[in-house]
Amino acid sequence: MSMSHPVAPHHDGSARYVPEQAPELGDTVPVLVRVPADADVRRVHVRTTPDGEPRFSEAVVDHTDGDTVWWRAQVGVRNPVTNYRFLLTGRRGTRWLNAAGPVDHDVPDTGDFKLVTYDPPPAWARDAVIYQIFPDRFARSAGAATRPAPEWAIPCDWDTPVVGRGPETPYQFYGGDLDGITGHLDHLDRLGVNTVYLTPVFPARSNHRYDAASFDHVDPLLGGDAALARLADAVHARGWRLLGDITSNHTGDGHEWFVRARAHEHAPERELYYFDADGDYESWNGVRSLPKLNWGSAELRRRFATDPDSLLRRWLRPPYGLDGWRVDVANMTGRRGTDAYTHEVAALLRAVATDTRPDALVMAEHGHDHTGDLDRDGWHGTMNYVGFTDPVWSWLRAGDDPVPNFLGTPGGVVRRDADAVLATMNAYRSLVSWRAYTHSWQLLGSHDSARIRTVVGDAARQEVAAGLLATMPGTPMIFAGDELGLTGTNGEGSRTPMPWHRPETWDNRTFETYRSLIALRRAEPALRHGGLRWLHVDADTMVFAREAVDGTAVVLARRAPGSPVRLTGLPPADNVYGGAPPLRPDADGTLTLPADGPIFQVWRTT
Amino acid sequence: MSMSHPVAPHHDGSARYVPEQAPELGDTVPVLVRVPADADVRRVHVRTTPDGEPRFSEAVVDHTDGDTVWWRAQVGVRNPVTNYRFLLTGRRGTRWLNAAGPVDHDVPDTGDFKLVTYDPPPAWARDAVIYQIFPDRFARSAGAATRPAPEWAIPCDWDTPVVGRGPETPYQFYGGDLDGITGHLDHLDRLGVNTVYLTPVFPARSNHRYDAASFDHVDPLLGGDAALARLADAVHARGWRLLGDITSNHTGDGHEWFVRARAHEHAPERELYYFDADGDYESWNGVRSLPKLNWGSAELRRRFATDPDSLLRRWLRPPYGLDGWRVDVANMTGRRGTDAYTHEVAALLRAVATDTRPDALVMAEHGHDHTGDLDRDGWHGTMNYVGFTDPVWSWLRAGDDPVPNFLGTPGGVVRRDADAVLATMNAYRSLVSWRAYTHSWQLLGSHDSARIRTVVGDAARQEVAAGLLATMPGTPMIFAGDELGLTGTNGEGSRTPMPWHRPETWDNRTFETYRSLIALRRAEPALRHGGLRWLHVDADTMVFAREAVDGTAVVLARRAPGSPVRLTGLPPADNVYGGAPPLRPDADGTLTLPADGPIFQVWRTT
Repeated sequence: MSMSHPVAPHHDGSARYVPEQAPELGDTVPVLVRVPADADVRRVHVRTTPDGEPRFSEAVVDHTDGDTVWWRAQVGVRNPVTNYRFLLTGRRGTRWLNAAGPVDHDVPDTGDFKLVTYDPPPAWARDAVIYQIFPDRFARSAGAATRPAPEWAIPCDWDTPVVGRGPETPYQFYGGDLDGITGHLDHLDRLGVNTVYLTPVFPARSNHRYDAASFDHVDPLLGGDAALARLADAVHARGWRLLGDITSNHTGDGHEWFVRARAHEHAPERELYYFDADGDYESWNGVRSLPKLNWGSAELRRRFATDPDSLLRRWLRPPYGLDGWRVDVANMTGRRGTDAYTHEVAALLRAVATDTRPDALVMAEHGHDHTGDLDRDGWHGTMNYVGFTDPVWSWLRAGDDPVPNFLGTPGGVVRRDADAVLATMNAYRSLVSWRAYTHSWQLLGSHDSARIRTVVGDAARQEVAAGLLATMPGTPMIFAGDELGLTGTNGEGSRTPMPWHRPETWDNRTFETYRSLIALRRAEPALRHGGLRWLHVDADTMVFAREAVDGTAVVLARRAPGSPVRLTGLPPADNVYGGAPPLRPDADGTLTLPADGPIFQVWRTT
Repeated sequence: MSMSHPVAPHHDGSARYVPEQAPELGDTVPVLVRVPADADVRRVHVRTTPDGEPRFSEAVVDHTDGDTVWWRAQVGVRNPVTNYRFLLTGRRGTRWLNAAGPVDHDVPDTGDFKLVTYDPPPAWARDAVIYQIFPDRFARSAGAATRPAPEWAIPCDWDTPVVGRGPETPYQFYGGDLDGITGHLDHLDRLGVNTVYLTPVFPARSNHRYDAASFDHVDPLLGGDAALARLADAVHARGWRLLGDITSNHTGDGHEWFVRARAHEHAPERELYYFDADGDYESWNGVRSLPKLNWGSAELRRRFATDPDSLLRRWLRPPYGLDGWRVDVANMTGRRGTDAYTHEVAALLRAVATDTRPDALVMAEHGHDHTGDLDRDGWHGTMNYVGFTDPVWSWLRAGDDPVPNFLGTPGGVVRRDADAVLATMNAYRSLVSWRAYTHSWQLLGSHDSARIRTVVGDAARQEVAAGLLATMPGTPMIFAGDELGLTGTNGEGSRTPMPWHRPETWDNRTFETYRSLIALRRAEPALRHGGLRWLHVDADTMVFAREAVDGTAVVLARRAPGSPVRLTGLPPADNVYGGAPPLRPDADGTLTLPADGPIFQVWRTT
């Protein structure tokens, strides 16, 4: 299938279409629709459902820009989340325009555009480029060598191969620590990231530390509380941000709460978990070492969040000053049988975090359909595996074999053409607000997945993947080591130690790709704040525009060579990434994009 | 566009695919998928998300039936609403099968099939055929003439034309009463309906009575409480059911509650409404005579529902014994700005109604996207205007002019081809459980819309519409008079007095059409309890099968003549409605359906 959308009417939640980016209850705000002159649109209405009843308001022509007519309508912000869509009437009938695009039949409100009046995420989050670090595998400081390995550990030399699946997997102990990270921030600076996200740092009985034994202090194996304070200081001194990782769904069975809860039926900690009459307890996916927390417990809410010295608050304050939390297994948190506390917990954690520091970020881990959990007063965003990682993998997968081991889907991630990939991206994007979409993390992999290099097979296709990461609207998150071309076939197996001592193994081309793409994103407001308008899709090609008030970027991603893509209705543009010639219209006004591949190219309108 | 689905894998929530129709928490229930042998399916998994985390379970072949392979998977019913979909793996890749059908890209969980563990609606509702009566316009008893018209009324002779839009619209008073209905039940019996739904019967200051002045007694103009008891007895004596209509969103400004609330700032009734500091109050769509109820008020919940002698309860008990309520403006009930009590109110009203009588039905009026308000522990179903009325109208509309005045959509209901109509139906159907879909009312019009005869223009096309009404899965609701071919161009204008005294004006062909279609539905279990599998759609044609354990109905609806539709993979079938020849396979196994139109035909497999 081939698809070009040059004459499709368009709206999204970016500032060019929604000038008021932080609407408040009671506001009436303008929204704009871009309509090509030949799109058969004579009237435009906006439809909203204030207090649950449909209302239509007619749009007027705001201005005309070349062949494009910009319509403007007014939306009353009546409810905390105000949904709206457009009715386009032409000679050939009517169409709806919702967040999935124009459609010629009636549609439910689920795909409507959304204005969200809850406080926006902190301003810094919108421009963040996130670097994820798994502390055991990033770097050892000098002090690390002085600490004996714990009893549970299988001590490993830094060169020991990581075992991705086996009895030793959670126990392989490489001994990376927080001062090790502090000592390598120059690497992050060269790369160009500005936010460090650490997987858990609390004491535990595994290398991943998602089985916390306490939330009250940093694991001494990582250098303890003081090392976290030093890292926070160093990160903040560079003007960056630092995020922690908290397990709200479960603790480890070695956690001080659980130890007391299990030992004493009448312990105050008993209610924090799900014990049955026989003393058995609910655990994460049946893994006995990860007892599940019961958010029906007021005591849990107090300890975790509302207490003035709660764990959630303490680490957001000096001397640590975490800038927010990534919330582990947010998708299961508060859900068990008839218990459905998830949205309450999300609201509580956000309220307490932002009460502690107004610029705190609260991000949900969610490995499948997250759309029902966003756009409330809870999570600011999610890790967008389903709407970005999976579709990008399926498009750029090397060879015909599926990627195994992706979040449990039988058969793994199968190879698909770009039209199906775009359909997947749109399916998830269209169910959340522009705000939630752009503040969700788009990632090519993490400590819970294969590495992108293994998925796509070579540096050329990894460049296409990294290009999408850097130029699509979500917040980029890079798993440490991807920028060096590290490999890994599953989550545990991709927790590869950083090869600081073997620079000859670094893929410098890939590092340079990431460095220059991140620099491009940081330099180009349209890539951070612009809208998203698809211009062309065929099996091997994606072309889209990121349009902002102050400029437009045109992006071409190709996974294979093919035919040149010809576009009309775009202004001339200079290449700013990838080295292709500038885009100059021919006598018919047509721009011709390169046909080789795999390539990734970005132009900026002049 | 033409579309035939003979090789599409299929599942729906009917008993052939989900043998356990009332699953309970903790159950593990089988679900079956029908897969044509040439559909390229080698493995089938079912995906669920217990407690918010995806789980896959592999299906096995249950049995093979001719060219069809039936796969069986097990679904654990972990949460009150358990969603599931299927992953189909073949040589050419993987597809999902969810409630919208097979799809070759990833999809959110919103379109998943759903198992609902809340108590099912009462058993009688599934086989109901509903007849809606607007009391002022149905029939006058002998007693009606003895009652003086009220002060607000414009008394009308039974032959006075109804004014659909004007200052006199709410005040034209024809004087129909409840004993008038009781006296005409033989008409309903001839038609074949088995459930009477009355629009409001409480005293008011309009002919529609949605502006209740009290909930404590029946309007004396209708004959008072005793007349309702007489009607209830007569309805129940025939083995039928009787439903009332309650306004949960607002009362009239003449309501005894509101009169006291407005008069006294400290009256206990003040909190039942939304008064501001200036004494102004919130009202339905700004109509001052309809002050909005505030469901944040505990006193409202008590008076309306929880009190042992609440209005909700009282009319469900003898001597009235209403069998349930249609809830007016359910879509706005409990919604105002940041107030979002709708789901709480729905749960409360259902709980109280079923506590009062376990077989009570609680149906929501909803004129737009209802999907977010169903499948909870509240409304049993809704009036499915968006997923049935609107698409059927748009398909069968006579001429090219849109139908004006449909629930406020500018431009009205435009004419569309059957593929777009089916897309609309599927868009809404796929977001709710099979249970909520089948228990929602499908209607061709109501006291709030144009009449179907006016929409489609003639008896032949009305037959096609009535055919869909009688053979699709929802619960048919007929607005009194449609069966006589009455006309009306908008809601108020279609509140036409029943022409009892002018039998020469009755469209006897249409009456016979309705009578025989209702009889067919009541005789044929597949039409009440079967699944829904689409076999063919082109612009002018719809063909679907209703398949039950004990038989299959094949339905052909054509709005115009065209080419004959040829289908394979179906057994022979005899015509049971419409008079076409039986369906007999030719040498290739192909069945050929008639090409003329407009027609409506039903066959039953032999």
